[in-house]
Amino acid sequence: MSHTPESRIPRPVRWSADGRAVELLDQTLLPAEERYLRLESAEEVARAIREMKVRGAPAIGIAGAFGLALGMARAVEEAGGDGETLDDRLTELRDSLESARPTGRNLGWALERSGRTFVQALESGAEPAEAARALRDEAEAIAEEDAAMCRRIGEAGLDLLPPAGEGVLTHCNAGALATGGLGTALAPFYEAKARGRAVRVFASETRPFLQGARLTAWELTRGGVEATVVTDLATGALMKEGKVRAVIVGADRIAANGDVANKIGTYALAILARHHGLPFYVAAPRSTFDPRLASGGEIPIEERDPEEVRGISGRETAPREAGVWNPAFDVTPAHLVTAFVTDGGILRPPYDVAIAALLGEVGEESASPAARDSARATAEENP
Amino acid sequence: MSHTPESRIPRPVRWSADGRAVELLDQTLLPAEERYLRLESAEEVARAIREMKVRGAPAIGIAGAFGLALGMARAVEEAGGDGETLDDRLTELRDSLESARPTGRNLGWALERSGRTFVQALESGAEPAEAARALRDEAEAIAEEDAAMCRRIGEAGLDLLPPAGEGVLTHCNAGALATGGLGTALAPFYEAKARGRAVRVFASETRPFLQGARLTAWELTRGGVEATVVTDLATGALMKEGKVRAVIVGADRIAANGDVANKIGTYALAILARHHGLPFYVAAPRSTFDPRLASGGEIPIEERDPEEVRGISGRETAPREAGVWNPAFDVTPAHLVTAFVTDGGILRPPYDVAIAALLGEVGEESASPAARDSARATAEENP
Repeated sequence: MSHTPESRIPRPVRWSADGRAVELLDQTLLPAEERYLRLESAEEVARAIREMKVRGAPAIGIAGAFGLALGMARAVEEAGGDGETLDDRLTELRDSLESARPTGRNLGWALERSGRTFVQALESGAEPAEAARALRDEAEAIAEEDAAMCRRIGEAGLDLLPPAGEGVLTHCNAGALATGGLGTALAPFYEAKARGRAVRVFASETRPFLQGARLTAWELTRGGVEATVVTDLATGALMKEGKVRAVIVGADRIAANGDVANKIGTYALAILARHHGLPFYVAAPRSTFDPRLASGGEIPIEERDPEEVRGISGRETAPREAGVWNPAFDVTPAHLVTAFVTDGGILRPPYDVAIAALLGEVGEESASPAARDSARATAEENP
Repeated sequence: MSHTPESRIPRPVRWSADGRAVELLDQTLLPAEERYLRLESAEEVARAIREMKVRGAPAIGIAGAFGLALGMARAVEEAGGDGETLDDRLTELRDSLESARPTGRNLGWALERSGRTFVQALESGAEPAEAARALRDEAEAIAEEDAAMCRRIGEAGLDLLPPAGEGVLTHCNAGALATGGLGTALAPFYEAKARGRAVRVFASETRPFLQGARLTAWELTRGGVEATVVTDLATGALMKEGKVRAVIVGADRIAANGDVANKIGTYALAILARHHGLPFYVAAPRSTFDPRLASGGEIPIEERDPEEVRGISGRETAPREAGVWNPAFDVTPAHLVTAFVTDGGILRPPYDVAIAALLGEVGEESASPAARDSARATAEENP
């Protein structure tokens, strides 16, 4: 097992050895440096999420749940058995963590799910310390399930990869660094590699944070997959020259109709793929689908600090006098998506039906928490 | 006149006060620092062009002609009256300067034109020192004509700008810093400003050299024009949200059929504009049109050093283990261009006819050196 990609690529979120802190691989320092941050409170975790020390919707969800577990363990130590105080604290920590990144689906979902475990444990008569442990167990279960989901996505995506030796373009980082496992969009590449099939991956740089250049190229080469970096707008020429045969990206949130919120630039890549007749795939676990949102127009889009664009490594790259427009995400309409690659298999249009089936089917069959939660959320809003 | 944009924006290429050196505004340091490099030989000028201290096809052409003037003045001092030695030296310097950047049309054109002046002066019986002065006068004439061309492009482009308050997207830098005057793609904005008309310009960053963020945003705000920087692939979302009503870019070389070589990313922007139903304009003087090339497939595309993408300001942004694909330009097919904005007016399809008319008409009417040269080049290849 020592040569699997999973063993070669550091985990983005983990518990400290003493179990009293969450450790995040500081992704702002990669690829130059591998350093874990030790975070001892939920507030520190929220700040690290906001500062993009950890990123990628599933990894943010896991970090959020770990942070909530940390915060509630502390709250129990401090408040003792006062149920009302603990309830208030839970709400406060959930809100604080959730607001750290508003666009991704998984953060709110993971906080809701792990937080509910705490409430239900108390309601079932558990001691507060026991409820806090249940919350932590649930957070770990989320991470483990995420790893399993990544494997299923990777296997499902294998069939969509072009013949050996051909290229595939990906954007931002929807890989091991973004999840609890081998990633979403990158998982098929690792699966292909494990089966001895050569894929040439092109990674668009992904300004302003350069996740494609810094993170995707790093983890792919680390995992033994050939990776080539291109600047973001070189992707048009890349497609024209036939260097890639498909595009595959991750997602931060997917509406009920199949509209996709993902890293800024995804929408443009979908248009470029369509223009060149290339398939455009979106890889995501069930937990990224948000059936409460009818379409992409309802997805909140985070606009980030202009300073992210004004400078790189302390060097001024745009003058103070100029404005900056810096949305972190954009929405790709469902009609530009050729297929979704999910842990429940490949989804093809019509997406409203396929997505409802994906979420509903599971809700009944295996009662996955993701689908259960989705179903409940829908039920709450449409009683 | 002290408040015209021309007076506010430093010139990219000029003679030193003592007349013995070419001074280039080091554009790799902008916007943080305004510093001129003093270059005392043609070889130093060629190196500065290669290192992109000066960039933009017209400014490169002017720098090349100034460098050739410098080199031939030196050669005359050293070789005295030996005509054959001077001829060899002229060829050598022209080749060396021309190879510094292979894609742009203007460099070869300016070197051919100024070099021919030298040869013709000698043939007419001028002393070598006199011929060297004629070469220098011709280089200065190229710069002055370029400034006049920019003004005509700016005036022609005014009619294509959207109503006051609406946005226009531009890519890379086709402005004062790229020319001998107020630019090509940016000239209409300065003209509009001079007429009291507000235009909101969006500048795409333009990786890897960030000319949009560093240079376009800098010179526009310096010239009193509102500028907002966006990351390269945010341009898709920018168009979708209706923040821009048109795209206007410059060009490095335009083939006889209207195919356009310009900064990498231009092709992708043309596709995005087409998808959103936005007009896509290319602004360029006659000297950028190359009637010797039937189509864009014949334009040589410079592939640059991977290191440009691997790091920013000494910070590693892509791992050593990953490959890099770094073409400096791409080719936008003529069918994606809504119109050309030239110093001879607006060109509409069919472009083969319009371009031939633009170049031919002038060759007969005003005998512009640009058109004369183009006509001669064509004649040489099609005797």
